Amino acid sequence: MTVDATRFSINQMTVKQLALPELASACGELGITGVGLWREPVAEYGLEATAKLMRDSGLTVTTLCRGGFLTAIDPHARVRALDDNRRAVDEAAILGTDTLVLVSGGLPPGSRDLHGARERIAEALSELGPYARERGVRLAVEPLHPMFAADRCVVSTLTQALDLAERFPADEVGVCVDTYHLWWDDRAPAEVARAGVGGRLYAYQLADWTTPLPAGVLNGRGQLGDGAVDFGQWHECVTAAGYTGPVEVELFNEELWARGGREVLAETLRRFNSLA
Amino acid sequence: MTVDATRFSINQMTVKQLALPELASACGELGITGVGLWREPVAEYGLEATAKLMRDSGLTVTTLCRGGFLTAIDPHARVRALDDNRRAVDEAAILGTDTLVLVSGGLPPGSRDLHGARERIAEALSELGPYARERGVRLAVEPLHPMFAADRCVVSTLTQALDLAERFPADEVGVCVDTYHLWWDDRAPAEVARAGVGGRLYAYQLADWTTPLPAGVLNGRGQLGDGAVDFGQWHECVTAAGYTGPVEVELFNEELWARGGREVLAETLRRFNSLA
Repeated sequence: MTVDATRFSINQMTVKQLALPELASACGELGITGVGLWREPVAEYGLEATAKLMRDSGLTVTTLCRGGFLTAIDPHARVRALDDNRRAVDEAAILGTDTLVLVSGGLPPGSRDLHGARERIAEALSELGPYARERGVRLAVEPLHPMFAADRCVVSTLTQALDLAERFPADEVGVCVDTYHLWWDDRAPAEVARAGVGGRLYAYQLADWTTPLPAGVLNGRGQLGDGAVDFGQWHECVTAAGYTGPVEVELFNEELWARGGREVLAETLRRFNSLA
Repeated sequence: MTVDATRFSINQMTVKQLALPELASACGELGITGVGLWREPVAEYGLEATAKLMRDSGLTVTTLCRGGFLTAIDPHARVRALDDNRRAVDEAAILGTDTLVLVSGGLPPGSRDLHGARERIAEALSELGPYARERGVRLAVEPLHPMFAADRCVVSTLTQALDLAERFPADEVGVCVDTYHLWWDDRAPAEVARAGVGGRLYAYQLADWTTPLPAGVLNGRGQLGDGAVDFGQWHECVTAAGYTGPVEVELFNEELWARGGREVLAETLRRFNSLA
C-alpha cells in the first residue's frame, strides 16, 4: 500500500492505555500528525484542555467518536439522545475536527423492527444535520458489521449507510468506511465509489479481521496484516473514489491494550507503512 | 406464525445430546415427522442403520448437513473435498433426503481473495451438481452470517448464494435460507422472492439471534422467540415466495445442549407453534 505516511492517523482507542499527553508526545516522536479521539477520554482530560494539547502538539483531530444511538422509541430517550448528539457536535467543533462519527444504535429492547429503527435514525439526522453544519461539523454514519445489528448498529452495510446519508445534503451527512466492518461485502467497492461520487466519503478507518472472535465480539479487531482484509485492494478502491483524507487505524484489541502503548503505536505505524 | 405444525422439522444439532434412537422415539411422542441430520452422528450410528431407523420411525429426513468446504487452492485438498462431497451426496440419497446443505468454506490459510474463493466454489459445484442430480439430490448453498466469512463460509448473503446457484440448473443447485444468518439484511426479502421465482428455495431453517455472542461465535444461536428475529415477517416472506416445504429448527447452543434433550425438543416445538 503506497499511502503517504503523512495521512496516517491513530485512533485513540487503538492505544487507549496512553493518556492524552502521552499519546501526544508519542505521536510527536514518531512523526504522527493525526489522531482520532473519543468523547469519554476527552471529557476526562477536559475538552478545552484536550483542544489546547492537540494544538500545542501540532496534532490534527481527524474524527471524533462518537455520536449516534438514535434508535430509541421512548420520547424521553429520544430527546436525551438528540441532546447528547448536539453536545458531541459542539465537542467536535471545539476540538477542531469536521467529522463526527455516528454509531447508529441497535434495536430497542423488545423490538424486532429493523426498518423502523433505521427510519428513526433518519428522523434524528434531519434534526442533527443542520445543527452540525452550522458548526462546521459533518455527520459520518458508520455501518457496523452485521454481527452488531441487534445491539449496537442497525446500519450494517455501506449501501444502507448511503441510502440514509443521501436523504440529506452532501455537506451534512456522509459515511465512515471501516475495513473491519465491510471487508466481507462484495458490494462494498461499488458503494465506496458511490460514496466518492456523491461527496459522502467523510472518513476511512482500518482494522484487520482475525479469528476466532472473542466473547462479545467487540474487542477482537486485528492488527493490520494479521488477518483477512486485503488492504491493498481497499486502498485502490478508496483512492479510485477520490478519497485523499486521513487514514485512521482503529483497533479494539485486548491483547494490544495489555502491551505498552508506545510500542503498539510504533508497531501500528510500521504495519501501516509496510502493507503491500 | 401460522405454519402448519406438520411442517416442523428438528435439526439434529439442536438436540445433539440425544442419540438417534432417542431422537426418533422423542419425535414419535411429540408427533414430529421431520428431522434434519448431520453426517458425523449418522456415520457413528451407521448410515444404513440410520436410514432404517428413520423409515421404521416414520420420519422424513428433510436435509443432510453438510457438504461443502470447497475453497481450497491446493489440488490434492480439492480432490479430497470433491470426493468427500460425492460421499455426502451418496449418504443423502441413502437417507432418502433430496437436499444436501453446503457450507462453502472460508478463505484458505494465508489467502485474502474472497472472489477467488467464491469462484472455486462455482467450479466445484459444476462437478458436483450433475453427480448429485443423477442420485436425486439437490445442493443447497447456505449463506452464513458475514461473521463467518473468513473461516467458514465466503458466501455471506442470499444474493451471493443465488448468484452462485443461478449458474447451474434449477434442479441441481439452490439455496438454504436460515434466519440466523440473514435476519439483518434488508435485501433478504427480495432475494427470498428471487429464490422462490427461480425454484431455488430448497431449504428453510430457523434460529433466533441473541446477544452477547459467545467466544468463537459458533454456539450462540438463540431459542425461537428469545432474540431479534421477526419470525412472523420471515414466514410471510418465505410463504409469499411459494415455499411449502419443511421448516427446520437448527440451534447451536451450549445452554440448550446442557439440558435434557427431550425437554429441549418439546420446548422447541412449543416455541415454533407459538411464534406470533
